[in-house]
Amino acid sequence: MAAFAIHGDIIWTEEPGAFRYNEGGYLVISDGKVVSVSDVRPDCEIVETDSSLVIPGLTDLHLHAPQYAFAGLYMDEELLDWLNHHTFPEEGKYSDPVYAGKAYSAFADDLQRTATTRVAVFGTIHTDSTLLLMDKLEKAGVAGYVGKVNMDRNSPDYLTENTDASVAETERFISMSSRFSSIKPIITPRFIPSCTDNLMQSLGRIAYQQDLPVQSHLDENLSEVEWVKELCPWASNYADAYNHYSMLGPKSIMAHCVWLNDDEIKLLRESGTYIAHSPSSNTNLSSGIAPIRKYLEAGLKIGLATDVAGGSSLSMFRMIQDAIAVSKLRWRFDASGGKALKFSEAFYLASKGGGSFFGTTGSFEKGYDADVVVIDDSRQSTILLKSLSVPERLEFYTYRHPDEFIKAKYVKGRRVL
Amino acid sequence: MAAFAIHGDIIWTEEPGAFRYNEGGYLVISDGKVVSVSDVRPDCEIVETDSSLVIPGLTDLHLHAPQYAFAGLYMDEELLDWLNHHTFPEEGKYSDPVYAGKAYSAFADDLQRTATTRVAVFGTIHTDSTLLLMDKLEKAGVAGYVGKVNMDRNSPDYLTENTDASVAETERFISMSSRFSSIKPIITPRFIPSCTDNLMQSLGRIAYQQDLPVQSHLDENLSEVEWVKELCPWASNYADAYNHYSMLGPKSIMAHCVWLNDDEIKLLRESGTYIAHSPSSNTNLSSGIAPIRKYLEAGLKIGLATDVAGGSSLSMFRMIQDAIAVSKLRWRFDASGGKALKFSEAFYLASKGGGSFFGTTGSFEKGYDADVVVIDDSRQSTILLKSLSVPERLEFYTYRHPDEFIKAKYVKGRRVL
Repeated sequence: MAAFAIHGDIIWTEEPGAFRYNEGGYLVISDGKVVSVSDVRPDCEIVETDSSLVIPGLTDLHLHAPQYAFAGLYMDEELLDWLNHHTFPEEGKYSDPVYAGKAYSAFADDLQRTATTRVAVFGTIHTDSTLLLMDKLEKAGVAGYVGKVNMDRNSPDYLTENTDASVAETERFISMSSRFSSIKPIITPRFIPSCTDNLMQSLGRIAYQQDLPVQSHLDENLSEVEWVKELCPWASNYADAYNHYSMLGPKSIMAHCVWLNDDEIKLLRESGTYIAHSPSSNTNLSSGIAPIRKYLEAGLKIGLATDVAGGSSLSMFRMIQDAIAVSKLRWRFDASGGKALKFSEAFYLASKGGGSFFGTTGSFEKGYDADVVVIDDSRQSTILLKSLSVPERLEFYTYRHPDEFIKAKYVKGRRVL
Repeated sequence: MAAFAIHGDIIWTEEPGAFRYNEGGYLVISDGKVVSVSDVRPDCEIVETDSSLVIPGLTDLHLHAPQYAFAGLYMDEELLDWLNHHTFPEEGKYSDPVYAGKAYSAFADDLQRTATTRVAVFGTIHTDSTLLLMDKLEKAGVAGYVGKVNMDRNSPDYLTENTDASVAETERFISMSSRFSSIKPIITPRFIPSCTDNLMQSLGRIAYQQDLPVQSHLDENLSEVEWVKELCPWASNYADAYNHYSMLGPKSIMAHCVWLNDDEIKLLRESGTYIAHSPSSNTNLSSGIAPIRKYLEAGLKIGLATDVAGGSSLSMFRMIQDAIAVSKLRWRFDASGGKALKFSEAFYLASKGGGSFFGTTGSFEKGYDADVVVIDDSRQSTILLKSLSVPERLEFYTYRHPDEFIKAKYVKGRRVL
């Protein structure tokens, strides 16, 4: 791919808490990678953006594509009731590839219009429908991982797999998904309560043998935590149960982690496991507020996630808002979780924080994948706009116009919107 | 005004917790008032809406128009710092009517596009700029109250009035605002810390003599509560200080009320004072979470409010989302505040709850003011749309498409959008 540069007001974070930016700078890209952010006009094709904001693509580290159709509904229930009354019946419909095709098209279309460039997505237990989802995401230009979900216990009949069949379908899923280039398979046991020991052992083995990443749920809700204690009396805690099946590590994402105890924090840190922090979902389902400051200080790896349909919005800008908001409330009610997140810290989590799960993405450092979103914020509604700094414009945009005015999106240097 | 009817999927609440709706019904309106919601096609002009949602106009019971320009900025600070660093300097600019005119035009334009039909708004200390604000709101078709703010202590020089001048300007403001028909004046001491005893006494007397409503701030932030204790050692609590100046009653709005103690709850109940619950602002400024369930059970009068720019959004649908969200988190951290709000309860607070401050508004009961918003939700993004009930469609719209697709808005039966 020929080198080119995007000329605009470029802003990114390399570590939590500090923006870097270059007003009227050049983001130089070659072979799909960032070469530099430069003050000097480079000698290559220049994409002019008329002083637009130029930011790294954002990462949604955890969401359920088959739940998108009802995201924003049934918000009056807690996790386990919500699963049984709404989520499972809806997921059952994805046995029909025609329904799945329609729903996943709507999902991929809406996701394409956001600033999200990387995702880690749950499908359903249905292999063929999940392959359809991969196809639609690949065509939408989004990169990342999609998992066929595994469930062989404590689930409605229509979502309960035979253990051997679940393993065989997982292998077929992995094999069939080799055709995709930007979307890759990920091993996806729904969570401990939905998967027998035998299934978990088989999935752990497949992940290890085929060097595949893993995603699941951990410590979301207090009732769920109690349930796992009953199901796995041999485990010293919920995280330890996943570790027993070799499912913790730098290629693993554990969604939520609202209620980690100190042993679990240690286990996640030592294993390098990623936390998909889902502030909106954890609020909607009355799960609680993960102490993100404490986790950051403990050295855990953290990205942000919509967890659609626990979260009602696909917008990572909304997740930045919500991560900050809940961190303030957590601090107010229980200061042991640490101080509130600042805007620059939440932006980091939504970009490089979660992006690092996919390699070098989510920043504009040299050699990073050129995942770029161009936002024409000149249309923002305020008479103050001309007096704002680049970080202030980004904050204003995040709160007032999330995912509006996106005029271009690039993934690995290729324009996808 | 001739009678007419709006034909659509009509939904409203008459008390917290229960939707009423009529799919394919007729909302019959005469002389600006609701006559009935009927199954039968009435013999008058019919406005066809093609199965749109037809809801009562929503009420924003507390917001600061001069802060709208920076709503969504500076979210990393707590109340008192945020006031001194950002809010006061911006409000100072409204001494210039040219600046005020531009900023208030943008505010009124954006407000007009929302589902809000009634407001209680703070201006600044500047009488002429505040009259400009009233003019713009009246032209935008929004009804309600606007206050010239009073401040004569503990404020920057450029926002500190001489006490006598503050009183005289308030009288001029009231007199000059008689030209408006839908927008009325309201007595607006900023809050106890900004107003001397003398000023508060004069304002209380003006409100009483001229039968005017009052709006102010109460128990928003713990540092503020401590400060008022020092300033008013003679008062048994913060609410009691307002009561001392005859500023509590059924024509008074007290914004926030996050930290009411039992004596204050009793005082607000007995006086019939309204609480403007501002969940988004109370989160953004790390103030806390008002125990709304407890207040409802105590019989307090409550409406919802954006509190722009403590809140970053003008959307009352977003306030419904946030009122539910924070009530869930409050329940999780401190169950003494009571159970979480349900969607139907939060919708009630945003419509009839706050609307009742303005008389009979916010519902479709017979004789209510015909404040109506028509929403073409057929454009909502979900393949489930056709299978949803009217309340489910409203919930989905509230979370996924707040203030989008509004195709008509009526205030007192007159079309304003």
